[in-house]
Amino acid sequence: MTIEKVQIVEKIFEANDQVAAQTQSLLSKNSVFSINIMASPGAGKTSVILKTIEKLSDKVRIAVIEGDTAPVTIDSDKVIAMGMPAVQINTGGQCHLDAVMIDRALKHLDLKNLDLIIVENVGNLICPASFKIGTHANVVISSIPEGDDKPYKYTNIYRGIDVLLINKIDLMPYIDFRMDYYQQGVEILNPGLTTFQVSCKTEEGFDNWISWLSTQVTEFKNRS
Amino acid sequence: MTIEKVQIVEKIFEANDQVAAQTQSLLSKNSVFSINIMASPGAGKTSVILKTIEKLSDKVRIAVIEGDTAPVTIDSDKVIAMGMPAVQINTGGQCHLDAVMIDRALKHLDLKNLDLIIVENVGNLICPASFKIGTHANVVISSIPEGDDKPYKYTNIYRGIDVLLINKIDLMPYIDFRMDYYQQGVEILNPGLTTFQVSCKTEEGFDNWISWLSTQVTEFKNRS
Repeated sequence: MTIEKVQIVEKIFEANDQVAAQTQSLLSKNSVFSINIMASPGAGKTSVILKTIEKLSDKVRIAVIEGDTAPVTIDSDKVIAMGMPAVQINTGGQCHLDAVMIDRALKHLDLKNLDLIIVENVGNLICPASFKIGTHANVVISSIPEGDDKPYKYTNIYRGIDVLLINKIDLMPYIDFRMDYYQQGVEILNPGLTTFQVSCKTEEGFDNWISWLSTQVTEFKNRS
Repeated sequence: MTIEKVQIVEKIFEANDQVAAQTQSLLSKNSVFSINIMASPGAGKTSVILKTIEKLSDKVRIAVIEGDTAPVTIDSDKVIAMGMPAVQINTGGQCHLDAVMIDRALKHLDLKNLDLIIVENVGNLICPASFKIGTHANVVISSIPEGDDKPYKYTNIYRGIDVLLINKIDLMPYIDFRMDYYQQGVEILNPGLTTFQVSCKTEEGFDNWISWLSTQVTEFKNRS
């Protein structure tokens, strides 16, 4: 029973990774850079995406894929209200996006007229870490009110990501958050990780993230 | 393939529920009331538990079972430092506790000398909703910085719970949180749900929760 279960899980991961590889290849062929944003519920994924659109959409053609466990369109409505294409995925209770869901979502987007696809994964610090979805970069958004012990408790999500945003730094005065302790925890799991401290509310530090992302999009286009 | 997968999932749930029923029966026989605390990472589960111990341990004999996905003892160390028995469960990356884990953890506790067991589930608003663990009451801790749209996005976790704590209300002045909107969302999923607005930091509203919990423990003991 245990062996059977393990074999099925392995097959699921293998099938997922194959689709993810095809997706990445399709996006690369169309010179579309893509990022997968992962975070706890309420860390500020949607706020970061909306602020990123605000800052970047004059020079970068952006689309957003929104993942939610319930059939809601709260987040995709906000993206569409800013004039950007958005595809909503309802995972039907599943705790993460997978490569097949993204493959299907991409059929609703005009890749030839895009530079950047931002995927907002389901709010969850555990399960999304195990499923590649075919994006070029993985991003975690952490937030000050979540507390400084998260890298010690949710280790897998910090491994293998390319960028970390520490959001809601405007709340630092009101919360006991030891930035050194937090960053030491991250450093053990992902040495030298590119990290930006930001606030969507005050915009503090946000331009550094925009500059990084903008550079990635440009360099990716030049390479393809 | 799909049918096989569904059948295996059903068997897992069925086996889990059987163990959960045995656990609940064992705890009831020993007159030990038990609660399962579920929340996002960083909503304040451990802080609520520590403050509950501080307020209640002079008249209620408490033990804590801590669930984490990684092999850390950060939370159980804090409980032990307060002089309470604690059992740490490392789920090995799994995104929720299950009934078998609790069954094993209980073997490390002296049930005859306890009135209340508090289980801190893994920080996750999705997966823990699907797995009974044998406790008498299910509790969700929400927090103000997580945002007011959570009941609309993470619907399952709010269904079938017995109590809701809205934590970190001391941060209300610094965050755009529409309490009415949040509570309307909860009301649709779980009408009339017992709800306490609390702050572990300022202790505002905390005595209402303590009073509720204390009453549950006493009434449970009187019924057994």
